[in-house]
Amino acid sequence: MIAATPPAPYYAVIFTSLRTEVDEGYGAMADRMVELAAQQPGFLGVESAREDLGITVSYWRDLESIKAWKANTEHLVAQQTGRSDWYSQYKTRIAKVERDYGFGSPAL
Amino acid sequence: MIAATPPAPYYAVIFTSLRTEVDEGYGAMADRMVELAAQQPGFLGVESAREDLGITVSYWRDLESIKAWKANTEHLVAQQTGRSDWYSQYKTRIAKVERDYGFGSPAL
Repeated sequence: MIAATPPAPYYAVIFTSLRTEVDEGYGAMADRMVELAAQQPGFLGVESAREDLGITVSYWRDLESIKAWKANTEHLVAQQTGRSDWYSQYKTRIAKVERDYGFGSPAL
Repeated sequence: MIAATPPAPYYAVIFTSLRTEVDEGYGAMADRMVELAAQQPGFLGVESAREDLGITVSYWRDLESIKAWKANTEHLVAQQTGRSDWYSQYKTRIAKVERDYGFGSPAL
């Protein structure tokens, strides 16, 4: 689903990754992180797709919300296992959404 | 590939879309738009993945580069055909990347 974010400005965390061949625990972790992120203060939505490259964009009210999510204990464990097992490369970009526009309903 | 962008700040255009069942011309257009974007002044890289949801993030030096790309004649035709044929929904978000960090080479 296209995230139904509120009017700009808000923040995006663009997480781009390449996987290793280690699959154990990955799917459960990915599902759990989406579930857990959605419970955090300031969470606005998430969009995700993977072919060879995986892209997950999560949306947040402000930088403080992102900082708190990054420091979440269960998320820290996932980040650590990501580096040791699941990802060969990743990049995280923190960006301020200044403007948005769309087409089609209901996610305008 | 994870885009090897320069040090922040720079800009991201996050384009999230859902497809219709019309496939004619879509693949060729998508390939051509990546090729054409890469020739534009200020282009820094692009990342793309699609499952049900498609996410394409292109990176740009500044807002002027994004504005010029949006107004590119061949790109305008693709945007128009996207609305009439290929996409049931899309959302475009213009965001300023304030910070980034990564793991693994070579795309740190």
